[in-house]
Amino acid sequence: MKIGFIGLGHMGNPMARNLLKHGHTLKVFDVVPDLVRKLTELGCEVASSPAACAQGVELVVTMLPSSPHVRSVYTGKDSGKDSGILSGVSPGVLLIDSSTIDPHTARDVAMDARAHGNNMVDAPVSGGTGGAEAGTLTFMVGGDSADFEKAKPILQCMGKNIVHCGGAGNGQVAKICNNMMLAIEMIATAEGMALAVTLGMDPKVFAGIANTSSGRCWSSDTYNPFPGVLENVPASRGYTGGFGADLMLKDLTLVTEAAKAAKQPVMLGAAAQQLYQMHSTMGHGALDFSSIIKLYKKD
Amino acid sequence: MKIGFIGLGHMGNPMARNLLKHGHTLKVFDVVPDLVRKLTELGCEVASSPAACAQGVELVVTMLPSSPHVRSVYTGKDSGKDSGILSGVSPGVLLIDSSTIDPHTARDVAMDARAHGNNMVDAPVSGGTGGAEAGTLTFMVGGDSADFEKAKPILQCMGKNIVHCGGAGNGQVAKICNNMMLAIEMIATAEGMALAVTLGMDPKVFAGIANTSSGRCWSSDTYNPFPGVLENVPASRGYTGGFGADLMLKDLTLVTEAAKAAKQPVMLGAAAQQLYQMHSTMGHGALDFSSIIKLYKKD
Amino acid sequence: MKIGFIGLGHMGNPMARNLLKHGHTLKVFDVVPDLVRKLTELGCEVASSPAACAQGVELVVTMLPSSPHVRSVYTGKDSGKDSGILSGVSPGVLLIDSSTIDPHTARDVAMDARAHGNNMVDAPVSGGTGGAEAGTLTFMVGGDSADFEKAKPILQCMGKNIVHCGGAGNGQVAKICNNMMLAIEMIATAEGMALAVTLGMDPKVFAGIANTSSGRCWSSDTYNPFPGVLENVPASRGYTGGFGADLMLKDLTLVTEAAKAAKQPVMLGAAAQQLYQMHSTMGHGALDFSSIIKLYKKD
Amino acid sequence: MKIGFIGLGHMGNPMARNLLKHGHTLKVFDVVPDLVRKLTELGCEVASSPAACAQGVELVVTMLPSSPHVRSVYTGKDSGKDSGILSGVSPGVLLIDSSTIDPHTARDVAMDARAHGNNMVDAPVSGGTGGAEAGTLTFMVGGDSADFEKAKPILQCMGKNIVHCGGAGNGQVAKICNNMMLAIEMIATAEGMALAVTLGMDPKVFAGIANTSSGRCWSSDTYNPFPGVLENVPASRGYTGGFGADLMLKDLTLVTEAAKAAKQPVMLGAAAQQLYQMHSTMGHGALDFSSIIKLYKKD
Repeated sequence: MKIGFIGLGHMGNPMARNLLKHGHTLKVFDVVPDLVRKLTELGCEVASSPAACAQGVELVVTMLPSSPHVRSVYTGKDSGKDSGILSGVSPGVLLIDSSTIDPHTARDVAMDARAHGNNMVDAPVSGGTGGAEAGTLTFMVGGDSADFEKAKPILQCMGKNIVHCGGAGNGQVAKICNNMMLAIEMIATAEGMALAVTLGMDPKVFAGIANTSSGRCWSSDTYNPFPGVLENVPASRGYTGGFGADLMLKDLTLVTEAAKAAKQPVMLGAAAQQLYQMHSTMGHGALDFSSIIKLYKKD
Repeated sequence: MKIGFIGLGHMGNPMARNLLKHGHTLKVFDVVPDLVRKLTELGCEVASSPAACAQGVELVVTMLPSSPHVRSVYTGKDSGKDSGILSGVSPGVLLIDSSTIDPHTARDVAMDARAHGNNMVDAPVSGGTGGAEAGTLTFMVGGDSADFEKAKPILQCMGKNIVHCGGAGNGQVAKICNNMMLAIEMIATAEGMALAVTLGMDPKVFAGIANTSSGRCWSSDTYNPFPGVLENVPASRGYTGGFGADLMLKDLTLVTEAAKAAKQPVMLGAAAQQLYQMHSTMGHGALDFSSIIKLYKKD
Repeated sequence: MKIGFIGLGHMGNPMARNLLKHGHTLKVFDVVPDLVRKLTELGCEVASSPAACAQGVELVVTMLPSSPHVRSVYTGKDSGKDSGILSGVSPGVLLIDSSTIDPHTARDVAMDARAHGNNMVDAPVSGGTGGAEAGTLTFMVGGDSADFEKAKPILQCMGKNIVHCGGAGNGQVAKICNNMMLAIEMIATAEGMALAVTLGMDPKVFAGIANTSSGRCWSSDTYNPFPGVLENVPASRGYTGGFGADLMLKDLTLVTEAAKAAKQPVMLGAAAQQLYQMHSTMGHGALDFSSIIKLYKKD
Repeated sequence: MKIGFIGLGHMGNPMARNLLKHGHTLKVFDVVPDLVRKLTELGCEVASSPAACAQGVELVVTMLPSSPHVRSVYTGKDSGKDSGILSGVSPGVLLIDSSTIDPHTARDVAMDARAHGNNMVDAPVSGGTGGAEAGTLTFMVGGDSADFEKAKPILQCMGKNIVHCGGAGNGQVAKICNNMMLAIEMIATAEGMALAVTLGMDPKVFAGIANTSSGRCWSSDTYNPFPGVLENVPASRGYTGGFGADLMLKDLTLVTEAAKAAKQPVMLGAAAQQLYQMHSTMGHGALDFSSIIKLYKKD
């Protein structure tokens, strides 16, 4: 299938390469020439604008850093004339946006697309650059069932777990609500581990108990933030690799703003956002997000 | 074995009966005559004080509501003369305290016992009255390895999972640190579920995604607080049964005071304690602790 | 002076009337016909768009509900053609925006105005509808000194306290940072009063002590939230009148989003935003903001 | 008047000296010989126990570090025999405790004293060592009116502001509730100042505005935490001198425990306790409590 692919950064690059591996043909666009070059070396066609990238393709995939980028790439102007995907794409072509953005913007852009005759699904991912390279990402997909079914074989070239979350925007809702739970549970684990050790327990013994009890969570049994409890996690290699604290902060900012707009209290979510903000202000934003335990224990 | 058993409430009663079932002989004590009567009907010998209850037995088990009770039952006076266990028990007899109390008191009393010639383990439980009746409690045991091995066959009459947590007091540490994680994760789940639904998702679909992702925890996959997501949990029967919100509040109060005494920050633990306090003040203390979601959604 | 005035709601109406009283001539615009009618009855000229309202006047004043309104009124389009103030106003005319919005938008719009040849000051107010009617508002003004001096005599027709806060956007910064402090201090007072009374003190006696000690603040000595402590405050008339809890929630939402964008932690500010959100969710948003004490005491 | 004085540390020493200056005769006790020596050099009689110190005096004043000390000094035993004040003092002698402790203990000890025939008032102070030396302390007094009137002339030798707060324990309630408000307001000021400056305002200009608006509080207008805003405050001399952050942490710990015992939510009070705990863990406990702003701004 001929696919337009826009956004060729750390995530977009390996995702595009996995589409190539499965025999698809790509036309690509990015504002950074170096990122484009890596794909042209693999034989991809280059477009000069999102509109051009969407012209003559059978499907469009986008992977962008934030809500304003998504708006601009789909409906933006350049020097006064329309340059966005919607001004170039043929009606009927399915649009897949894999960016993590706020659900409100996702729904807005999907409505604009619909008005233009194009169906759109939001399909944010989890799994990080490792999952993108291995083709094992999870895609959380919001959109009509028929569109989900159409998107699925394409997404399966890049991921392993393709989940339908309901209508437009629900992929984003699933992603940010899950990540809010994750952030709070990581801090819960950090506080529990640090306190148990301060009160005299061995960290592995305590983790073993919590992980077979009601306190267990992914952050304690799979990604424990206390150094030495698990092998092959960021906590056991100086919090390098993994999912950056500043990326978690970005998701927490998204989710707390979505909660505010929806008038929905999220007391611990808001506190978690503040704790990651403090952690980042102290200079730890580039470390894995499990490094939040540094707020609670001396090194 | 002849065992002295003190504290015959909702938890102590079924625990004592399970010891009887396994062929042990009991001498019992409680300040509430009605609670004592239920055991005498089963043939237990009655004692008039903790000291008397501990006289002539081979092992002592206590199950009491709070730290001051434990102190008083082990080392207290009545009308000016010593009436506690330590004034009646023979040196060498092992003492097992299954109360949930603060680790500091647990260690203090264990030291008093040691000075008197008795080894002691703290062995708080999880599993609730259901587990107590079924004999499937988890015991988190703090004390020397030799004492743990001696206590184990007795605890196995009342529970299924007997875990050694390290030295004296560590059973309490494991219990309260696990429950702090549990409380925070329950609130994380409540906030995540409520927000996902407010933003337009089906609660079962969202729970399904979180439970196979990094947001999963016991509170989401085994005890989900959103009505209708799981069968046979308190959320699906009006938050009746289960583990009461006021009991969680009691444990959170214990753990945050232990953290204060240890100068250990527990930011979300303190916020969780306050949220359960608010919930209780609003009149929901008798409901299951998953009812905390009422702070976040309209009924 | 001939002034264009846009935004004729609860605040804008009395502000416009005070300008009339001081002999100024007004041309007015609002999207709600009923609000416009009240001013035409007083002899004001009516305009059909913001652009038209700004044409041929010597100064423009706007009083709008939120950031998107401000952007749209200054730079918006209607049916594809420019209809905002900047497309109608003559270069050199001073623009005064009295809306409470985020500082970032305030600075953005001021830059757009500058590019068009118009200087602009942001001049949000405090003092509520009472102050607007009495002409005793405080104006916090951000902009160049020369523009501040030009705006001052006009603002003095509507207010008593005209404060220069520095460059563009600083009026907004002063307003929202002050209101964040106010919200936190109001909750501090509510918690202190409620706890002192629960612990056995008379509320007036405790307030008297705090107000002459280091705990004193405007919320305790001038606007006490405990019923019966002060006369003529909302707490002593069922929390009617005053500054609505939902308006405080709006300002807290603005300030916490500005803090997020600036990567500045505001731990208690974020907690205050959540508490006002909870209070609003419970149905108390229309009451005065001192009613937040309802979270802490039984009625 | 012949007065027994117990507790001769940083606060007790200058308080005792001020009593001497006003012509009173002192019999003193402290467990630290060096502290006692400083008073014997001034001609005070020395006692060998609290009981001995209270024998033959007309009034007793105590100034101790914590609740357990107060219990022990009033009702304790030494080597198995009663050594506390109540075992030595004559019935009818008034007892004044100026320690800052929890209201519950204060009321308990006052009841013990009453049973022994002695009236007691709790009279914690504010004003620090500076106020103790200058004789300008504020005393917050809990007890009967008649006892308050009897205590007043004595307290006026050591302080300037003598306030009756109601019955036994209310002095403590006033002290800790005021200090909880103070701590929250200090953090409110720190967050407001730091955010206003990050968003582009001059710190003095913003403080000037807040201090004449609804955000004003003692922490902003008299003890501003931002360096350079006020002269002669700890913020302008590297946070030396003043009221130590660890002393504020101690008071916050007292007040949040009193709130827990009373089942009274104090959401921001609990958050403030945690923030001071974090600040202390980072090594800043010895600085003035306004240094909490270090959590919010780079040095």
